[in-house]
Amino acid sequence: MVNVNIGIDMGGTRIKMGLVDEEGNLRKMQSFEARSGRSMDNVLKDLSVPVNELCSDKEYRVGGIGIAFPGIVDPGKKKVLSDYVKYPGAGQTDFGAWGKENWALPVALENDARAALLGEWQYGTGKGCNNLVMITLGTGVGSAVLIEGKLLRGKNFLAGNLGGHMSIDYNGPECNCGNTGCVESLASTWALKNHLENARDYTGSALHGAENPDYESVFRYARSGDSAAVEVRNRSIKAWGTGIVNLIHAYDPEKVIMGGGIMKSMDDILPGIEKIVEKHSWIPPGSLPIVVAGKKETAGILGTSYILNNERKKNNI
Amino acid sequence: MVNVNIGIDMGGTRIKMGLVDEEGNLRKMQSFEARSGRSMDNVLKDLSVPVNELCSDKEYRVGGIGIAFPGIVDPGKKKVLSDYVKYPGAGQTDFGAWGKENWALPVALENDARAALLGEWQYGTGKGCNNLVMITLGTGVGSAVLIEGKLLRGKNFLAGNLGGHMSIDYNGPECNCGNTGCVESLASTWALKNHLENARDYTGSALHGAENPDYESVFRYARSGDSAAVEVRNRSIKAWGTGIVNLIHAYDPEKVIMGGGIMKSMDDILPGIEKIVEKHSWIPPGSLPIVVAGKKETAGILGTSYILNNERKKNNI
Repeated sequence: MVNVNIGIDMGGTRIKMGLVDEEGNLRKMQSFEARSGRSMDNVLKDLSVPVNELCSDKEYRVGGIGIAFPGIVDPGKKKVLSDYVKYPGAGQTDFGAWGKENWALPVALENDARAALLGEWQYGTGKGCNNLVMITLGTGVGSAVLIEGKLLRGKNFLAGNLGGHMSIDYNGPECNCGNTGCVESLASTWALKNHLENARDYTGSALHGAENPDYESVFRYARSGDSAAVEVRNRSIKAWGTGIVNLIHAYDPEKVIMGGGIMKSMDDILPGIEKIVEKHSWIPPGSLPIVVAGKKETAGILGTSYILNNERKKNNI
Repeated sequence: MVNVNIGIDMGGTRIKMGLVDEEGNLRKMQSFEARSGRSMDNVLKDLSVPVNELCSDKEYRVGGIGIAFPGIVDPGKKKVLSDYVKYPGAGQTDFGAWGKENWALPVALENDARAALLGEWQYGTGKGCNNLVMITLGTGVGSAVLIEGKLLRGKNFLAGNLGGHMSIDYNGPECNCGNTGCVESLASTWALKNHLENARDYTGSALHGAENPDYESVFRYARSGDSAAVEVRNRSIKAWGTGIVNLIHAYDPEKVIMGGGIMKSMDDILPGIEKIVEKHSWIPPGSLPIVVAGKKETAGILGTSYILNNERKKNNI
């Protein structure tokens, strides 16, 4: 029997579940749609079915369940502290009890960006580097920070997680978080449609009227000269670049890791980011690697498994 | 004989020198004009005279010299890493040799905001609080960060120090540092004259034509309704408030300490800052004390003395 953990990454659109061995190898992986509106407790009930299956597989000995959650998390109390529209009631959910009562298994709960950062640090492009900033571009903009091999958490578990909610436009539009000119409100998938519609040449754009525009199509049309797409692309890259310069100035890391769904278009994004960092940041030119996540789909799963292994080790000592 | 350290705070306009005993009490204090244009080595030569006097005072046994410098500093190598126009050549100065060759005394060199943060943490309003953000408003905007009782430094000794150079206006004016829309370029004493001159009603303002306007007069005239002063005051408070929200989102501290010369006008500043933090930040309302530095004039001096005491302790163990 192989010792494994179950890792669950609760995304905004999909929930991914993986089986990870002690060396960080992914042994199995499946994913489910995150059906909007179902309460967190009901989502866990749904997830109990595949967890049951994995736990009864004779090939594996499951040691724990790790959950990466897209919100502010108290990992000690295993509590979600912020509301997240996709999983209503998550703040009241007792994740620890779910694992304990159903399978007598320990549960690790962590913010998804922090979990992804741990996954990249242990098994991905962050290997060997104890001072990391991770930023994820997707439905929203997430971030996490590792300092001297320790996750930065802060008093309210917010530290490092709010790279998407640093203001880079103090006279700008209000973000849905209540802050003004947040990086996320200026450049993320949820804000994209609005920015397209406000682009100068929107009516003449191939994206005119698109119900759910995504950055991949923005980059594709921008490459062929669509001027609304060019405008939104350039402004988004400027916003992400400025946000990253602020994170660099805040933490002065050894490496920046960029992840999230939008980074599928890394060739359209990275050169622009590097140019902004080179021009605007205080760090010596060329001294800071800005790299793409190595475990794009699985970093969060791997990260929560690492937490479980780590806690087990600590308890044995 | 009382055991003391000499602490020197190299300000942009004045250099302060103090004698600090082991309990952090200031025994003596004097200050000198920072005469622009003299090289760092010549400034140290000037400072040797009062240091000599202090070292020959029979009442005290001087254990070391601490220097708080307004720039990026490598405290291990005792080297200044950034240029600072007031002290040309500081990057080439061997501060350690100055203390050793003249008085056989150890020298501690630290960034001035970090030194002030240590002073406030040990002897001022930061006492008993191991997670602190300090921001200083003056000629420029400085900052420093303490996490779990340790100064945040980063790979290039920049971490925590660049609160004044986080961008809050990504389409804004270029800062003299090369970045865009920095807090410091939007609201600090060096930038003040320019902002006044660009205020809507500048020609009708009592500050019209002022050669060296300062924030104290801006606040005073704003209180009497001078509209250019009101405009600059409101915009500056908004810039500082946004910058502080970004620092809170970056580090999620237990307390924010505000220092620097401009904070003499704290009554004109603090309420506005608190309102912005309340409205724009993610932290629970009312949960974060934003306080004024307790050792306004001496925190940097006390901080470098603390470093020296600490190093002595470490070496004895």
